[in-house]
Amino acid sequence: MSRTSIPSNLKLGFLGAGQLARMSSLEAFRFGIQVAVFSDRTENEPVQFMTPYSTSGSFDSVDDMVEFAKGCDVITLENEFISSDILAEVQEKSGTPIYPSPDTFSLIENKLIEKQTFEKAGIPVTPYQIVDDESSLKEFGELYGWPFMLKSSKGGYDGYGNETVHNLEEAKKAFINLGGDKGQDILAEAFVDFTKELAVQVARNETGTVVYPCCETVQKNHICVAVLSPAPVKDTFQNKAQELALKATEAIDGKGIFAYEFFLTSDGDILLNESAPRPHNSGHYTIEGTVTSQFENHVRAVLGLPLGSTQLNKPAAAMINLLGVHQRPAETDHVEEPLSTENGHLHVYGKVDSKVGRKMAHYTLLGENLEETYKKAMHVTRKIEI
Amino acid sequence: MSRTSIPSNLKLGFLGAGQLARMSSLEAFRFGIQVAVFSDRTENEPVQFMTPYSTSGSFDSVDDMVEFAKGCDVITLENEFISSDILAEVQEKSGTPIYPSPDTFSLIENKLIEKQTFEKAGIPVTPYQIVDDESSLKEFGELYGWPFMLKSSKGGYDGYGNETVHNLEEAKKAFINLGGDKGQDILAEAFVDFTKELAVQVARNETGTVVYPCCETVQKNHICVAVLSPAPVKDTFQNKAQELALKATEAIDGKGIFAYEFFLTSDGDILLNESAPRPHNSGHYTIEGTVTSQFENHVRAVLGLPLGSTQLNKPAAAMINLLGVHQRPAETDHVEEPLSTENGHLHVYGKVDSKVGRKMAHYTLLGENLEETYKKAMHVTRKIEI
Repeated sequence: MSRTSIPSNLKLGFLGAGQLARMSSLEAFRFGIQVAVFSDRTENEPVQFMTPYSTSGSFDSVDDMVEFAKGCDVITLENEFISSDILAEVQEKSGTPIYPSPDTFSLIENKLIEKQTFEKAGIPVTPYQIVDDESSLKEFGELYGWPFMLKSSKGGYDGYGNETVHNLEEAKKAFINLGGDKGQDILAEAFVDFTKELAVQVARNETGTVVYPCCETVQKNHICVAVLSPAPVKDTFQNKAQELALKATEAIDGKGIFAYEFFLTSDGDILLNESAPRPHNSGHYTIEGTVTSQFENHVRAVLGLPLGSTQLNKPAAAMINLLGVHQRPAETDHVEEPLSTENGHLHVYGKVDSKVGRKMAHYTLLGENLEETYKKAMHVTRKIEI
Repeated sequence: MSRTSIPSNLKLGFLGAGQLARMSSLEAFRFGIQVAVFSDRTENEPVQFMTPYSTSGSFDSVDDMVEFAKGCDVITLENEFISSDILAEVQEKSGTPIYPSPDTFSLIENKLIEKQTFEKAGIPVTPYQIVDDESSLKEFGELYGWPFMLKSSKGGYDGYGNETVHNLEEAKKAFINLGGDKGQDILAEAFVDFTKELAVQVARNETGTVVYPCCETVQKNHICVAVLSPAPVKDTFQNKAQELALKATEAIDGKGIFAYEFFLTSDGDILLNESAPRPHNSGHYTIEGTVTSQFENHVRAVLGLPLGSTQLNKPAAAMINLLGVHQRPAETDHVEEPLSTENGHLHVYGKVDSKVGRKMAHYTLLGENLEETYKKAMHVTRKIEI
């Protein structure tokens, strides 16, 4: 249902209390909308410092989530950790709508079904196969070549739930690590000879659909370290990625914000790699980089409000992920240079503890030229230590 | 003390819990900084929906405020309702620094001292006189002409604490209304024959000083209804207003964000009318209109962080204040058009109740041409009802 009015007591509930809920909340607050969060963690999450309406519970407990949902007008999510069956039950028992809908989730929560959904919609995906024993692992390697990826069909995130395997021994080990021997569906995915990884965000609801610029995600050990927008690739590739992202959002009848990650292959093909029914790290640059951020359009989309423009504010945006380098109470050191740089924007997530490799903050620099902007963003953040 | 590091548990306390604390908090959150608010109101303030750290108490009770301040790393303010004596006592007893400092407040909290401070610094102010009886009221009218303004020397805000008087009878009545018979110092101020009202914000701390573009404030019945930036006046006037604003901030040794309102007279003089040691309605357009908003620079300034650029993001910005037109639980109706307009940004304050004339929300439109942008902003917000 679209909405043309914002009552002051509107309450948006997040199942999940991580940094994506936190950054979405900042946009909800701009509209005078209240925020409630449901956390499944024991440690304090930063968004819990931003609302008096914080609940703890388990993502497996329908009752916990129904109780929470009853106090909210709309529920949304910031992760893919809750199964669509449970979401459907929470929605039905609480009477509070959940967006993206449980039906949408059911089409992408499992990597096998996700790939089938998108293939059916005519979207090229990376070659894959369900593997369930040694011989199927071996066959896949022979067919597509070593190394390849093994992925648990549920719950992958930031490289967790994924393993690269170079030979049968590694494949067998990874199969067990990923829970294949405990009934978890394991997907083998061919290694794609890509030249770039691209990403596109799409916001969609009953009022319309908007698509963000195609950006490049720069990965290191399966962790995104930087995002460049617009992606430094030919317009035709940018347009193709945007077209596929729109088609994918249609295919799952998405209401909310969605992110799609693609491989641009050396042959010039664009293959869908992953999808996420939520704001995504590849879209953090939109906070300052585009007229309406992915977080604002997330809030608008799930509340049924008209969506905002996704135009770039400047010709180039570079976003640097700032990862923890210490194991200590979090502290973002040496911020003078990044804070003093024209059009540089520092975001600190407020996490209580720093861990090596943990996403603790990010920095977005806007400029006129992408290469220079990226170089400068790397340079001015080089001393930051968290 | 300047700061080069942001610890994750840093807590910024606001004495006052209104919309300026709310909008400043959104910027503190971006840096992972926690926010605590001290409210002197009984009704729920929107910022209280944005933090678990909310305290109620009296602005007259040093003990209440000391207790609050002890739990914070830095205290700042969003109004001028607390006397500098009390602030100094709270600072001393709690050990928590207050910025802008009690010394700064002492130079501007009283309208007479404020004018003397700025005159001494070479800043032209509107002609004024302390009036204490019928004959001084009469004399002032004879000297500067009727009508003129009467202002209580403390606590004026948005037209409250000010009255325009057209003759001696009105002057005598207003003198009593403003508390002149109860010992409140009353200032008479000559009516200035101005062509425009201008405003400039300045952020300053130990790391440096930044000045925002000179904007025009459009007033109706002493309430600001719109802000246009840059002000549609000659560059020399813009520069002069910025220069005076910088001088004024030096004169009070300001640490924080400050706003100055000026009259541009028909003779081409620029006279300082009012100052505010806090974010100001005239600077709301900076949220999207400039690289760093007044709220972000407020947070940076009081925490001792380097200040951000005040450059305009687009050639023109128009901000429309959206005032309540109903007496009812707040609800912002007919938001489709403003939300769908390219580069239009709606901010709803989340106040629980709407009252006729109450500032409930604002809308900022960015564009290429000021006149067109202003016209369009008025047009797309015409149906909004709160």
